[in-house]
Amino acid sequence: MKTTPHIVIIGAGFAGLEVARGLAKAPVRVTLIDKHNHHLFQPLLYQVAIAGLLPSQIAQPVRTIFRRQKNLAFQMGEVSEVNFDERFVKLNGSVIAYDYLVIAVGGCTNFFGHQTLEEHGFQLKDIESAVRTRNHLLSLFEKASAEGDAEKRKAMLTFVIVGGGPTGVETAGALAELIEHVMAKDFPRLNLDEARVLLLEASPHLISAYPDELRRATHHLLRKKNVEILLNTKMENYDGQRVTLGNGTKIESQTLIWTAGVKAAELADRIGVEQASAGRIRVAPTLQLARHPQAFVIGDAAFVVDGNGSPLPMLSTVAIQQGKAVAGSIRRLVAGGEAVPFRYKDPGLLATVGRNAAVARIFGLSFSGLIAWLIWVALHIYRIIGFRNRLAVMFNWAWDYFFYENQVRLITRE
Amino acid sequence: MKTTPHIVIIGAGFAGLEVARGLAKAPVRVTLIDKHNHHLFQPLLYQVAIAGLLPSQIAQPVRTIFRRQKNLAFQMGEVSEVNFDERFVKLNGSVIAYDYLVIAVGGCTNFFGHQTLEEHGFQLKDIESAVRTRNHLLSLFEKASAEGDAEKRKAMLTFVIVGGGPTGVETAGALAELIEHVMAKDFPRLNLDEARVLLLEASPHLISAYPDELRRATHHLLRKKNVEILLNTKMENYDGQRVTLGNGTKIESQTLIWTAGVKAAELADRIGVEQASAGRIRVAPTLQLARHPQAFVIGDAAFVVDGNGSPLPMLSTVAIQQGKAVAGSIRRLVAGGEAVPFRYKDPGLLATVGRNAAVARIFGLSFSGLIAWLIWVALHIYRIIGFRNRLAVMFNWAWDYFFYENQVRLITRE
Repeated sequence: MKTTPHIVIIGAGFAGLEVARGLAKAPVRVTLIDKHNHHLFQPLLYQVAIAGLLPSQIAQPVRTIFRRQKNLAFQMGEVSEVNFDERFVKLNGSVIAYDYLVIAVGGCTNFFGHQTLEEHGFQLKDIESAVRTRNHLLSLFEKASAEGDAEKRKAMLTFVIVGGGPTGVETAGALAELIEHVMAKDFPRLNLDEARVLLLEASPHLISAYPDELRRATHHLLRKKNVEILLNTKMENYDGQRVTLGNGTKIESQTLIWTAGVKAAELADRIGVEQASAGRIRVAPTLQLARHPQAFVIGDAAFVVDGNGSPLPMLSTVAIQQGKAVAGSIRRLVAGGEAVPFRYKDPGLLATVGRNAAVARIFGLSFSGLIAWLIWVALHIYRIIGFRNRLAVMFNWAWDYFFYENQVRLITRE
Repeated sequence: MKTTPHIVIIGAGFAGLEVARGLAKAPVRVTLIDKHNHHLFQPLLYQVAIAGLLPSQIAQPVRTIFRRQKNLAFQMGEVSEVNFDERFVKLNGSVIAYDYLVIAVGGCTNFFGHQTLEEHGFQLKDIESAVRTRNHLLSLFEKASAEGDAEKRKAMLTFVIVGGGPTGVETAGALAELIEHVMAKDFPRLNLDEARVLLLEASPHLISAYPDELRRATHHLLRKKNVEILLNTKMENYDGQRVTLGNGTKIESQTLIWTAGVKAAELADRIGVEQASAGRIRVAPTLQLARHPQAFVIGDAAFVVDGNGSPLPMLSTVAIQQGKAVAGSIRRLVAGGEAVPFRYKDPGLLATVGRNAAVARIFGLSFSGLIAWLIWVALHIYRIIGFRNRLAVMFNWAWDYFFYENQVRLITRE
């Protein structure tokens, strides 16, 4: 008697979710594992940090997403071991055998070994780190409003963001707007001209993956929002009170948000597989492990090169396409066929710089300003999971837009 | 030259907020102090614990509430000292002098010295404790779904609520509904007939302050929702795994929510004032301290007796009326007049037992069932601060009502 093949997917991010969905009608059993009980729409996490959105508006319980998919079971927990030879994973002490395994564990912040940075820097990687950042930002305004010493107050209101990629750009723009439009109303006695938002980038360009006219537009839009942009500037050290730059300059600041590095999640380091740059797992063009073809690796954790020999970026669009491709390959394998090589189709680029301002490159066309922003809003609302969340996010954004008011300005204790 | 009198209010709960508002047009300066940056609508906190509402939907930043009140400044922090003789308070190391002081610090959970209970029991007192309860409840369903041992699984799905007052009744009803309508859909493989919600009450009645027909109606409504009600039942001990009752019975349970005791907040214990039962501060009929008439105490922290000699209950309606009265007294004192004795007007009683079910006593009439529930919904939406929050809560409740779906089922790490 033939038993139903068992597919184990580790990770309910964009990549893992897509595999699970692609197997909905296949003659298989699926076990989806994640250490959180929810899928997170990470591209909007920075909005949680700047008090624009609520965590639950960009997250959805995995069980709810797959309520109707009868061949899928969800298990919450952290995988402690992967045994490729005997084909099982260990979860919460139990052994789960698989016929095919999909590793879609995503990425985590790369501090490049900077110990003090890891200790004092803020990051935007999961709900907890974003809420921690929000609490810290809002608390500083409270502290500054009670501080008589002008130098100390300035240090409290100096916000440094490191990394000129889309996350850094979006965070800097949104933070500058929060200060100008919302905090100015809540703290009428505080001189917010003392507040500074600095964006540090080691290379000569912001959003270096974008075409030149969009880089320039981004630069211009951020400057208009009073973000101070320091290009060709490396962060040398941060001790929680002071940022030291590569050229020796010191900036007094109690906030450094680190968006300048991503690497594969930690599981990649302890399962005995070949790793490339940023800890990513090297896979065959079919996204299989060369030595263990029953195992696939996709998303941020996978290292794949495109036709030109350069590695695919760690982007949700790559993860989603890889998830779809692997679901297809598994369906074929189960039916006696073979896995197919993966080819990435670039859908364009899109980044927002705040209210009414974004840059986009779609179908070979570059947009910036209001039109790009409207595209950004529409696309992100469309992509957020759950009809209710879509409504809630739309309502929040409309409200913020018309009333210059961010909703979630609560300081909660951890 | 006469200086503007300075009023210091400690606490931005219902009582403190009402004083601050009542002084909006008075010739005074007001400093409002709270350890949180937000006012919390505590009567709905239990809905955060059962994943029905988001924290920020029942909380509003204090600065936003008072944006237009030019004579008021807010300061976040904990008061470390009150000096009645020299008329100042100490906050974050600074001295703040006052002409009139209002102590409106509210209450906290009273565990009556039960050490293990305080350690292992859950409470509903602020956003953090409610979110902790939510995370715990949701995690247990995840754990139970991975647990093979039937006895252990049953202990995970046994929820004990202690205290048959309005909070206990509302929590028990809402939790029973969450299990029946929402968790049953998210955990199709889990046999939720194993789940139990127990409500323990030491006295012979639920909601003992209510008339007898409403007590009976509450009992009936909760039984219909499969809540097991144990009256005349004292909790003897709880160690995190097992509840021991007064009669020796033991119940295996990993969740005990303690709603059976409130006392005055801790500040009341360390400012050298006369305290009555539950640590509440004894005040004159004008709500002033007898020995320090420049200081008022109101809300849960104040001990006042009504016309019949019984102490006023720790209810938001009492706090609000006292806040209004004290604002009036201060306005009179500043104008050279005198403080007026406080008299409480009972506006009625209202408690919900879940979907379509509540009990109410208003204008001498008792209601139960759907009508009472509609009154409850309307009144609570009306009382929540902030137009945006009102819309959001209304939207949430309508959604939950029509789709049997709770919004906020995220497990976040602390």
